Amino acid sequence: MTQSISQEVLQSVRWAGESVDLLDQRLLPEETVYLRLTTPHDVWEAIRELKVRGAPAIGIAAAYGVVLGILGFEGNSKELAAEVRNHADYLATSRPTAVNLFWALDRMKAKAAVLAESEAPVSDAIGAMIAEALLIQSEDEETNRLIGEHALTLFEDGMGVLTHCNAGGLATAKYGTALAPFYLALERGISLKVFADETRPVLQGARLTAFELQRAGVDVTLICDNMAGHVMSKGWIQAVIVGTDRVAANGDVANKIGTYSVAVLAKAHGIPFYVACPLSTIDLSTPTGADIPIEERHPDEVTAGFGKRTAPEGIAVYNPAFDITPHEYVTAIITEKGIVKAPFSEGLKKLF
Amino acid sequence: MTQSISQEVLQSVRWAGESVDLLDQRLLPEETVYLRLTTPHDVWEAIRELKVRGAPAIGIAAAYGVVLGILGFEGNSKELAAEVRNHADYLATSRPTAVNLFWALDRMKAKAAVLAESEAPVSDAIGAMIAEALLIQSEDEETNRLIGEHALTLFEDGMGVLTHCNAGGLATAKYGTALAPFYLALERGISLKVFADETRPVLQGARLTAFELQRAGVDVTLICDNMAGHVMSKGWIQAVIVGTDRVAANGDVANKIGTYSVAVLAKAHGIPFYVACPLSTIDLSTPTGADIPIEERHPDEVTAGFGKRTAPEGIAVYNPAFDITPHEYVTAIITEKGIVKAPFSEGLKKLF
Repeated sequence: MTQSISQEVLQSVRWAGESVDLLDQRLLPEETVYLRLTTPHDVWEAIRELKVRGAPAIGIAAAYGVVLGILGFEGNSKELAAEVRNHADYLATSRPTAVNLFWALDRMKAKAAVLAESEAPVSDAIGAMIAEALLIQSEDEETNRLIGEHALTLFEDGMGVLTHCNAGGLATAKYGTALAPFYLALERGISLKVFADETRPVLQGARLTAFELQRAGVDVTLICDNMAGHVMSKGWIQAVIVGTDRVAANGDVANKIGTYSVAVLAKAHGIPFYVACPLSTIDLSTPTGADIPIEERHPDEVTAGFGKRTAPEGIAVYNPAFDITPHEYVTAIITEKGIVKAPFSEGLKKLF
Repeated sequence: MTQSISQEVLQSVRWAGESVDLLDQRLLPEETVYLRLTTPHDVWEAIRELKVRGAPAIGIAAAYGVVLGILGFEGNSKELAAEVRNHADYLATSRPTAVNLFWALDRMKAKAAVLAESEAPVSDAIGAMIAEALLIQSEDEETNRLIGEHALTLFEDGMGVLTHCNAGGLATAKYGTALAPFYLALERGISLKVFADETRPVLQGARLTAFELQRAGVDVTLICDNMAGHVMSKGWIQAVIVGTDRVAANGDVANKIGTYSVAVLAKAHGIPFYVACPLSTIDLSTPTGADIPIEERHPDEVTAGFGKRTAPEGIAVYNPAFDITPHEYVTAIITEKGIVKAPFSEGLKKLF
């Protein structure tokens, strides 16, 4: 049964031997197009332009981006490590908020450093770097399954659950983080009624979450972001679950813009607010949410995002891609190693 | 100065002698097209399809719709009154939530009944009915100005004010209700920084509020609905002001979907939440918000509203056009007769 689900989930990133095949998420749900990326710059651009998005998937794509930069590299393994650092530092500039990007790139740099230290033959070292990137991806699959298992213990048959943005199979290697329990519930005959915020401006909820859940057969209803409070007031929502781009050491959570509003609304309605993420998204070196850089994106995403202008020319726009949800609004953080509740500073530290 | 502002404001509805000229608001901000309506059915359809929207403007259009049905009527003034009732009852089926629609139609029926009672010659009676519709519109202008004056007493120079949907000149005869204080502030050199929620799914905030405020020279910044909580958390908002489609006797407020979320967010941030409306929007015969019918609209508004499909085919959608904000979240209701605060049941009754 697990396999049938896995076949249903589109793979957002896959290593194709000498290139990276990337599902262009900007074109979903209308078109399913895989792009063939062959250079680190291709990957940088794909991350920057949201062809690939979702914190874990960005990390995976970036790791492959490093590999693309060193295929056929000539030199010794020390020079290879320097080359890896260069590509990694470049790829790290693609987007500022998701910590998995930096985590995956650091891991690739560390691997290259170890290989340089051992003075491995460069062809072996390149092979080991490819294996490391593949490992990041395969570990992410298992991580997601475990997150799903833990999350599912918080849900009961018949519950309504709201999610924001897309932290599903398209954002990760498989299953997703926040969406993982929905796939597992489906496999096990546990009935959940999912509400997906469409998630303006880029509509990851409408285009991706609604798409992948519907495709898998999950009971999902699409709403506009501004309907979240209303459906909560009707008693339709018993839990909220979202992914995250970075968790600070104190439990503050950076996630797609609008997450904070959902968290405040959940608290006002006495609804638990859960955050699902791998350990690689938790950054103990970021003390609080105030220390997380928030990317601002182009006004066109808001004013002309869908082939049609929807606001007057020249209008001032504020378009932050993320917001910070302070830990007071977070009921629990669900990781592959288990569920952490307040006080988060202690609980998160214990995970590592 | 007032005049220069009034010239800046596009008129959403105007009587053209034997027809109604209606600004097609679905095409804004890209195109400024006036439709010529000649039958009650034209008006019914224009209301139904959101070519005209905003509670006061719907009421005005409906009154003219009645007039279109009786131009050239042959018969006596009693038969005219029956004809008016027929047209009014038909026009009342165009949309369910905005009470100004029913209020304006009731006023037209009452006028026709008085004319029938006095056995006025039918041509005089028709003239009087035209005059009554014109009066509804011109009274609305004055009403809005007074609402703006009262609202402005709540604002101070330098404040950030958030609004949702469009309760501006396009929703009313002029100035608008919730937007009226912004126009008056501009005239008087009081600096306000307005944030306009884009207001999914129909984007009245992006297409209409941003458009009319920018056109008038008001400092306005467009945000997506899900950014409201984030901008509040940044300390940028000192007040929220919105219009309404119906106020119940206990002060519960029906307004565009998303208003309830904004009200809950405002309360969580200690920000006052104001509702601006004419007395004609307050319905003492509706005891509470639970008694206000909430229109649900077509899923396509959510899934294919931008000229491009943004969600998968066949996806389940919940698309309520309005929500109810319980009176506990309302700091004050601002009318042409002054400002009402809790307890609303008493305060609202005193206005009449």
